Amino acid sequence: MLKLYTYFRSSAAYRVRIALHLKGLSFEAIPVHLLRDGGEQHSTAYVELNPARLVPTLQDGALRLTQSLAIIEYLEETHPEPPLLPPTPEARARVRSLAQSIACDIHPVNNLRVLRYLETSLRIDEQARSGWSRHWIDVGFGAIERMLADARTTGTCCYGDSPTLADCCLIPQVFNALRLKCPLERFPTVMRIYEHCLRLEPFQRAAPGAQIDAEPPPGVQTN
Amino acid sequence: MLKLYTYFRSSAAYRVRIALHLKGLSFEAIPVHLLRDGGEQHSTAYVELNPARLVPTLQDGALRLTQSLAIIEYLEETHPEPPLLPPTPEARARVRSLAQSIACDIHPVNNLRVLRYLETSLRIDEQARSGWSRHWIDVGFGAIERMLADARTTGTCCYGDSPTLADCCLIPQVFNALRLKCPLERFPTVMRIYEHCLRLEPFQRAAPGAQIDAEPPPGVQTN
Repeated sequence: MLKLYTYFRSSAAYRVRIALHLKGLSFEAIPVHLLRDGGEQHSTAYVELNPARLVPTLQDGALRLTQSLAIIEYLEETHPEPPLLPPTPEARARVRSLAQSIACDIHPVNNLRVLRYLETSLRIDEQARSGWSRHWIDVGFGAIERMLADARTTGTCCYGDSPTLADCCLIPQVFNALRLKCPLERFPTVMRIYEHCLRLEPFQRAAPGAQIDAEPPPGVQTN
Repeated sequence: MLKLYTYFRSSAAYRVRIALHLKGLSFEAIPVHLLRDGGEQHSTAYVELNPARLVPTLQDGALRLTQSLAIIEYLEETHPEPPLLPPTPEARARVRSLAQSIACDIHPVNNLRVLRYLETSLRIDEQARSGWSRHWIDVGFGAIERMLADARTTGTCCYGDSPTLADCCLIPQVFNALRLKCPLERFPTVMRIYEHCLRLEPFQRAAPGAQIDAEPPPGVQTN
């Protein structure tokens, strides 16, 4: 049985959850709370599994895998159906480029540890931190919208009409942008694909709110 | 003939140059100066090629490819020899994870546009900006050193004794760290691999100082 070390709101973990559900692979979710007790990702046991102190980690028997895109490529190679990458090198490059435009250009600048460094070491206030996050999402989605809007390869999903690695990355990033209340009207193709994917069961099962460690949004009473 | 839009000091372009030279592929280098005239990557002609306004872009006939790791995977699929990824899914996941630990966790937080935003929008002074860069390199290399130091798969290179995608990413990141005068004594495995790779001709040909758009380091007189 595959084990996924995950945090409901981590968009890197969310990508891998989407890929697992798209491939119909069952897995045990092991929550790693990124905030509680200074962050469970810093525990000795977890650092042993993942020296980068990040989620996700996928355990497949004795094998431990880190980095969300490397994990999804591994799942693609070991469980090829349904494919998350198209067949030709050109098309694969296109899908990987879209995925990396999110995983390298948008997400790393906005993740928890970076925002925390801005707050604690550089004393950047909350408003400027929100501005920072929105800026990088706006710049990154601007590029992705332009890549998607003009391309004949864009379908109901980022590449054609079946979800790929690119959609595994895009949907969590839009989820994050909505959480941060980013204005997204300038990105109609991105939003159309987001809304399409949200209707698909694998994406619904992978969503933050559907996880065993999900917490209610701030302000919502649960009693 | 392949055309590579490149900037001598861009570590993402440097990765692709290494891969091209490792595979013995000749290419035309087209410099894109990231600083001159507000950055040539923002020109209308270049944004048409690369909507993310980043280097590198690889042009292969009518095909335009962006994102350094997607480009290297494309080169691997279209020119398999010598391989830059090992043969088994487990080993490939390992190499990709090392590569992404650099390309997703270290480099994006320290690239030019992020440092410029810290300076101009958040008014962070030069000393604190240097501290920022050193911090993320220190955290990232700490994880990579730990991943490499203990593993039986580590050889003279990141995976075995032949360069892979991981070395294509590691060497440019060490080059950057040295430019920023980061203390690197804590990372002996990283430095051993760096010094080994620098002795190999493909890495020498890909180095920033060997490019047609290379500029002398600050303080060096050229007249």
